[in-house]
Amino acid sequence: MGIDDAITEISDFLGQRLTRSKSDLELHGRSETHFPLSPPDAVAYPETTEEVARIVRTCAAHRCPVIGWGTGTSLEGQAQAFSGGLCVDFTRMNRILEVRQADMDVALQPGVTREALNEELRATGLFFPVDPGANASLGGMASTRASGTTAVRYGTMRDNVLGLQVVTATGEVIRTGSRARKSSSGYDLTGLFVGAEGTLGLITELTLRLQGQPEAISSAVCAFDSVGAAVAAVIDTIQMGLPMARIELVDTASVAAVNAYSGSTLPEAPHLFLEFHGSETGVAEQAETFGEIAADHGGRGFDWATRAEDRTALWAMRHTAYHAILAARPGARAIVTDICVPISALAEAIEGARADVARHGIEGPILGHVGDGNFHAILLFDETDADETGRALRAAHAMVDRALALGGTATGEHGIGVGKRDYMDREHGGAWAMMGRIKRALDPDDIMNPGKLVPPRG
Amino acid sequence: MGIDDAITEISDFLGQRLTRSKSDLELHGRSETHFPLSPPDAVAYPETTEEVARIVRTCAAHRCPVIGWGTGTSLEGQAQAFSGGLCVDFTRMNRILEVRQADMDVALQPGVTREALNEELRATGLFFPVDPGANASLGGMASTRASGTTAVRYGTMRDNVLGLQVVTATGEVIRTGSRARKSSSGYDLTGLFVGAEGTLGLITELTLRLQGQPEAISSAVCAFDSVGAAVAAVIDTIQMGLPMARIELVDTASVAAVNAYSGSTLPEAPHLFLEFHGSETGVAEQAETFGEIAADHGGRGFDWATRAEDRTALWAMRHTAYHAILAARPGARAIVTDICVPISALAEAIEGARADVARHGIEGPILGHVGDGNFHAILLFDETDADETGRALRAAHAMVDRALALGGTATGEHGIGVGKRDYMDREHGGAWAMMGRIKRALDPDDIMNPGKLVPPRG
Repeated sequence: MGIDDAITEISDFLGQRLTRSKSDLELHGRSETHFPLSPPDAVAYPETTEEVARIVRTCAAHRCPVIGWGTGTSLEGQAQAFSGGLCVDFTRMNRILEVRQADMDVALQPGVTREALNEELRATGLFFPVDPGANASLGGMASTRASGTTAVRYGTMRDNVLGLQVVTATGEVIRTGSRARKSSSGYDLTGLFVGAEGTLGLITELTLRLQGQPEAISSAVCAFDSVGAAVAAVIDTIQMGLPMARIELVDTASVAAVNAYSGSTLPEAPHLFLEFHGSETGVAEQAETFGEIAADHGGRGFDWATRAEDRTALWAMRHTAYHAILAARPGARAIVTDICVPISALAEAIEGARADVARHGIEGPILGHVGDGNFHAILLFDETDADETGRALRAAHAMVDRALALGGTATGEHGIGVGKRDYMDREHGGAWAMMGRIKRALDPDDIMNPGKLVPPRG
Repeated sequence: MGIDDAITEISDFLGQRLTRSKSDLELHGRSETHFPLSPPDAVAYPETTEEVARIVRTCAAHRCPVIGWGTGTSLEGQAQAFSGGLCVDFTRMNRILEVRQADMDVALQPGVTREALNEELRATGLFFPVDPGANASLGGMASTRASGTTAVRYGTMRDNVLGLQVVTATGEVIRTGSRARKSSSGYDLTGLFVGAEGTLGLITELTLRLQGQPEAISSAVCAFDSVGAAVAAVIDTIQMGLPMARIELVDTASVAAVNAYSGSTLPEAPHLFLEFHGSETGVAEQAETFGEIAADHGGRGFDWATRAEDRTALWAMRHTAYHAILAARPGARAIVTDICVPISALAEAIEGARADVARHGIEGPILGHVGDGNFHAILLFDETDADETGRALRAAHAMVDRALALGGTATGEHGIGVGKRDYMDREHGGAWAMMGRIKRALDPDDIMNPGKLVPPRG
């Protein structure tokens, strides 16, 4: 591989926008979770699709790995350069190209973050619903098929990307999808690139579906005596078809961490965090129905937030939970599990996860997007303690085993990267081998984010 | 190609369930629209996935084309054997395997039709929403990424298939997706097979997402003075975010044909056919809001159907429109256009289509799923009249040209088959070539429904 040759050629046309400074390389080699620092050989900051295409063509000519970078908030090592190469940082491709209010869609560059987009949309009456917590870039969110708290109502990135512009592994620029709301015109390449983690090409433009801002929004927290009771309320709610905008579980340990971190004073008990979207009467109707379901399961202490600032505070609390849990044990690293199961199996999956944590003698607060059957255990460990590290990993494996046995998936929203690649064969069998054949067909030289997601080349 | 050798071998293990009778071959060579009779060399009726796998392995060994068959209601020649080979008819694989009421999903074989499924679901409180009109098989609906009248609310087959079992082009059995509601576990192969029209493999089992039967349903028809006024009402409705379950345009010529065919007495004017789903109050709220919008555009003669039998009669009228239009000119064939555009461009697309029909001096009633920006012109022609045939084709081309110029797609729901393959390069450019690379990677011998959807092999 001629990584250095590629970098020299690219620096000829990018100038200062190609860097090899140690601080920049380390910044682009870090991970939010437990993967070791793995810096690239250089970082490029393109400003146009044509520059990205030229970068990839140059890398292809020299067999230099190409790794896309949005905000670096992925959790399975997707953006790390485990085999070196060039990191393509999309920070400078952060323009919103066109908000088409009448069609409720937007065209934008991949470096736009979801908060920047929603800030821009505020006056239009529209919003982009997918909310993974982190203020991630939309190109990164598409590449990892992100979802989060609102997927129960509005779907994941799979459901909200209408079309893409992509630079392929050979440096060609293609467009997938269209601005039509539906199409049966050939293979769904948009769907293929969403969730491909940069292994098939780099996304250089996105067309996203937008939603109308609801007439009324109401949020609440509600405490339960046990995780089991909270989960039972969730299952009844989903099975009744109540169109929840958000329904999140935060267990006792997570509540304690959030209180300590945010100065909040929630009772130390399992909670559901809820949100309803709709017309005034619709929201009232939903809230009443949910209140009845919650009461059946001993839900109490409903605290309603209808003012925008109170809702923001409530969801900020939920979104800081991960950092709050990490802060509760300074110096610890985390394995964040991400299983997703059919709703009928949710209680069994969560009870099992709690037993796994207890059996392995580790700390593992649980929280997540239970309306989708998706939750996270934040397994804390001291990376210098091999025994504790091993116990945390074994607990995570046990949860995945159970999810697969229950008809679910190893990862609801965090993706594969390197962290979940070992589960792929078990989850997908021959379908994983098929993913490898697609990868070889579209990236014959294996330069796009090598070592991630697909099987190793034979 | 050793088609005869493959058929001989397959008849050894299928016995009477492999036929070469002339009537059966012709039945499986026909088309709903304007394509000439193109029978296969034999028709197989497998009963199990293992039989399908054995059939495909045998065909692969002899390079014999394999074409899947559901109910033969596709409109672009998808199921016809233009280069001969073996038709795999899924009629005998028509079992509903498991209705999982708590998870609101169902596992079934591909030969189950949508009406059979909904009949089975009736007592469960659940239903399967996708409704393309024809009582198509669910395997065929997945393969063509079907949608129809309810897609505006519930999405297309892309949104309602959770997972598949597929026999690949090499006769391997794989599973895609899972029963979890969301997953970020690798490439979205489910999405790749949905809409692939049998060119990558044969679907042998589906897991479908179900919906709760709405507490209240209300349907209506409403007349307008002009197509333009009806379309303006649709655009306002969609842009306001009203969660319509159905919103269909039926133009004056279509209404006349329906009246003549069904004995109905609708006034001969453009109509919208509507349906609202929700709670009692929600439906009332939606109907009131729609009524105000319609009144703004001169809508009149609202005729409400809240009783189930009246609704059934109303939608039967809509669903027979295609046959009613054909019946209005005995002996004529039809080109059914299927463009889909962003909603802001819908009025321009429909006005343009009406002008195309007038300019080319043909009959072309218009109707369709206008809430999605998707509509059909039923272009009638006498296939023995080369001049009229040419005019009908030119009118269809003009509509596609306009749809692409407006940011839309040549086909919202009917797919490519052979009928729209000539538009693929223009609509997708390099992305169509990429579809060809995927096809070559997964079906190297080009036995799965050859000649459809992807570019010809060079």
